[in-house]
Amino acid sequence: MVLRDLVIPRSEHKARLEKIRNKLSRARLAALYLTSPTRILYATGFSHISTERPLAVVIPHEGPVFMLGPHLEKDHVQQDSPLIDETYTYPDYPGSQHPIRYFAKTLASKGLASSRIGTDSFEGAAGGWGYRGPPLFKVMGRARFEDGRDIIDNMRLVKSNQELRLLRESSRWAEAAHDILLENIRPNTPDSLVGLKASLGGLERMLRKLGARYKQLKWGLSPVVVGFRGQVGPESAIPHAVFSKRKVHSGDVLVTEAGVEIGGYTTELERTVIVGKPSPRARRYFQTMLKAQTAALRAFRPGASCSSVDAAARKQVEADGVADCLRHHTGHGIGLDGHEPPWLDPGDRTRMKPGMVFSCEPGLYIPGYAGFRHSDTVAVTKSGMDLVTDYPRELEDLTV
Amino acid sequence: MVLRDLVIPRSEHKARLEKIRNKLSRARLAALYLTSPTRILYATGFSHISTERPLAVVIPHEGPVFMLGPHLEKDHVQQDSPLIDETYTYPDYPGSQHPIRYFAKTLASKGLASSRIGTDSFEGAAGGWGYRGPPLFKVMGRARFEDGRDIIDNMRLVKSNQELRLLRESSRWAEAAHDILLENIRPNTPDSLVGLKASLGGLERMLRKLGARYKQLKWGLSPVVVGFRGQVGPESAIPHAVFSKRKVHSGDVLVTEAGVEIGGYTTELERTVIVGKPSPRARRYFQTMLKAQTAALRAFRPGASCSSVDAAARKQVEADGVADCLRHHTGHGIGLDGHEPPWLDPGDRTRMKPGMVFSCEPGLYIPGYAGFRHSDTVAVTKSGMDLVTDYPRELEDLTV
Repeated sequence: MVLRDLVIPRSEHKARLEKIRNKLSRARLAALYLTSPTRILYATGFSHISTERPLAVVIPHEGPVFMLGPHLEKDHVQQDSPLIDETYTYPDYPGSQHPIRYFAKTLASKGLASSRIGTDSFEGAAGGWGYRGPPLFKVMGRARFEDGRDIIDNMRLVKSNQELRLLRESSRWAEAAHDILLENIRPNTPDSLVGLKASLGGLERMLRKLGARYKQLKWGLSPVVVGFRGQVGPESAIPHAVFSKRKVHSGDVLVTEAGVEIGGYTTELERTVIVGKPSPRARRYFQTMLKAQTAALRAFRPGASCSSVDAAARKQVEADGVADCLRHHTGHGIGLDGHEPPWLDPGDRTRMKPGMVFSCEPGLYIPGYAGFRHSDTVAVTKSGMDLVTDYPRELEDLTV
Repeated sequence: MVLRDLVIPRSEHKARLEKIRNKLSRARLAALYLTSPTRILYATGFSHISTERPLAVVIPHEGPVFMLGPHLEKDHVQQDSPLIDETYTYPDYPGSQHPIRYFAKTLASKGLASSRIGTDSFEGAAGGWGYRGPPLFKVMGRARFEDGRDIIDNMRLVKSNQELRLLRESSRWAEAAHDILLENIRPNTPDSLVGLKASLGGLERMLRKLGARYKQLKWGLSPVVVGFRGQVGPESAIPHAVFSKRKVHSGDVLVTEAGVEIGGYTTELERTVIVGKPSPRARRYFQTMLKAQTAALRAFRPGASCSSVDAAARKQVEADGVADCLRHHTGHGIGLDGHEPPWLDPGDRTRMKPGMVFSCEPGLYIPGYAGFRHSDTVAVTKSGMDLVTDYPRELEDLTV
C-alpha cells in the first residue's frame, strides 16, 4: 500500500482507539460520542464534510465502533473507514423523525440508555448551517453526559513520529509553494490572482513528485494554499484582513501565508515581503520583528513554559520601544487544526514536552502603514527545538 | 462608491439593524449577542475569521452596536465596519483574564448585567480550534439568556432584491467557471488540478470584467470554486466524497460543483458530466435523474410546501424503479450559507414565499459504479419560479 506513507497508518489509528478505550475505562465512561470532524479524523481516519446533518462516531469502551449519521454517508464510511465497524443512518435532516431521536433510540439499542457517556457536544450534533434540534442530553434523560473533549485533545498535544513526518512533508511543499509565490509577485496585479496561481503551481509540483502517494484528506479547493489573505500594503496592518482590497503596488509591505495539507496535517509558514527597495522605516520595523522572532525561537525547550516563549518576544519588542504595535500573542499549537492548544500566551503555563509543535509568529502592526510578521513552525525536541519550516528570514531574501 | 453595487449597501444593513431592534423590543429583549460569523455579517456587514478567540457583536435594543473581541480585530472593525459603533477588546486568548470574564464585565458596564439577552451561543463564543471557557450564561448568573438565533435566521429566509441580484451575479460567474472546467477535463489528469486550474481561469475572467467593483467578503483561497469534490468515476457514487482518489479516465461519470462568492452570497451549480461516449447504463440513470429534477423544478411555486417539491422528485424516481439509489433529499435553502433552511425534505412543511431561494438537486447513487446529480439554484417568484442558474442540463451538452 504505497499511500500509507503520507497518511497516518491504520496501526496508529488502532493504537489511538485502544488508548481512548483505556481512558474511557479509567474514567468509568461507557462510550465516547464524537461530533467534531477533527476528533473523528484523529480517532478513526474518517474524513467527512460536516453539514446541518447530525453525524457522530461512537467509541464504546468495548465492542464495535459505530457511526450515527445521514444516509448519504453510509457508503462513504463502509468503503473508506475500516475502523468504523457499524453504521446506523437516517434518511436526511430534518426528516419525519428528528435525527437526534433516531440517535437516542440507536444508543439505547446499544445498551447505552442510562450510561455515563463522554461527549464533545451535549447537543449531540456539530450543529452548522441552520441546524436545529433537541439536545441529545435532554432526549436521553437517563444517560449522564460528561465533557469528553480532553480525552482526545490531550492526546493531540504531543505529536507522534509519524505526525512529525507528515508535518515536515507539509512544510517542504509549503516552502516550494512560497518560492512560486515570490516568483509571481509583481506590481499592478491583484493579490488574489497571485496567490491562486502560486497555489496551482505548488499543487502541480507536489503531485508531479508524489503522484498517487498523495491523498488529500480535508475538504477544500486545494490542499496547497499560498497567498496573502488580504495583508497587502496598508492592509498588512490588519492581522486578519480576510480578503484583498487592491492590487499589489511597488513599495508595499506584504504578509504571506503558506500551508499544505498532508494526511490531514498542516504547518504554518508566513513571511513579511517588501515589493521594491525597502524604506528606512520598513527596514526598522522588519528588523525589530525579526529580533523578536529570534528571541522567541531561542526560548523553546522541553520544560520551558509556553508563556516564557511569549515573554521572550514581548521583552524584545518592549526593549525596542514598539510594544504598542503588538496585536496578538506569539503563537499557537498546530497539527490537525490550524490553531490548537497550547498557546504561546501569558495565560498558558503549560510546560513544553518533546513532540509539541507550535507556530512562532510575533507581529508588529502600524495602522494605516503596514504589518510585519514571520511565522515558522517549531517542534520541541528532547534537547531543544527543531525548525519544521526551513525558509529564509532575512530582508535581502524577502525583497522582490 | 463603485463597490456598492456588488455588496449589500450600508442602507440595507441599517434597515436590517432597525428590524432586529424592533424584534428585540417586541420580545422584550435588551440586546442580541451574536457569535456566528454569518449572522454578524448579515446584521452589520463585518466579515471576520472566527478562531479560538471569542468574538461577539452585541446589538442593544437601543444605543450603540458594539464588538467584544480580541485586540487583533480592533483596527479591522474600526476601519471596515462603520455600523459597529464601539469596540471592547482583550489582549488575546487564553490571556491572564479569560475573555468571557472580560465580556461579562463589559456587558455589566453597559447596564446588561441582569437583562434578558437573546443569543446564538449560551457559551458566549463560537468556540472553534481548541477553545475552552466558562459559559457566559453561568458567568453572568443574574442575566437571562434566551435562544435568539431565529431573530436573524427568519429574516434570512426571504431574500431582498439586492440579495437576489448578488445571487444572480454569483450564478453568472459560476456558469463561466463551469464552462472553463468542461474545457479542461481530459483523461489521465488529476481532477484536483483540473478544478484548481478552472477556478483560476474563472477568477481571472471575473476580475478582468468586474475589476475593483468585486470585493471578496469571505475567507478562502479563491472566491471562485469549481471542481469535483472527489466525485470522479466510481467515487461519484459518494455524494460527499470530499477529495480526489485518482485521475480522470475515459468513460468516467463525474459530478461537478461551481460556486462563486459575491458580496458573501453563493449559489449552487452542479452537473453530471460523462467523459467519452456514454454507455447505455449511464444514459439510463442520467435520464432518470434529469426527469426527477424536472419534476421537482415544476413543483416550485409560492404557497407550495417544501416537502411537496421533494415528493415530486421522489415520486418520479419511484416510478422509474430506482428509489434505492436515493441518498438524500431534494435540496436546501441557500444564501449567505451554502446550506440554509428551509429544506426540500419530507420533514419540512414550510410554505414557499416569493424571494426564497433553493438548490434543486435530486441525486441517484449506485455504489461501485457512479452517481448522477444536477444542482440548480431556484428563486420562488410571485407567480412561480425563476432559475437563478441557467446552464445546459442535457446529456449531449455534458459529454466531454
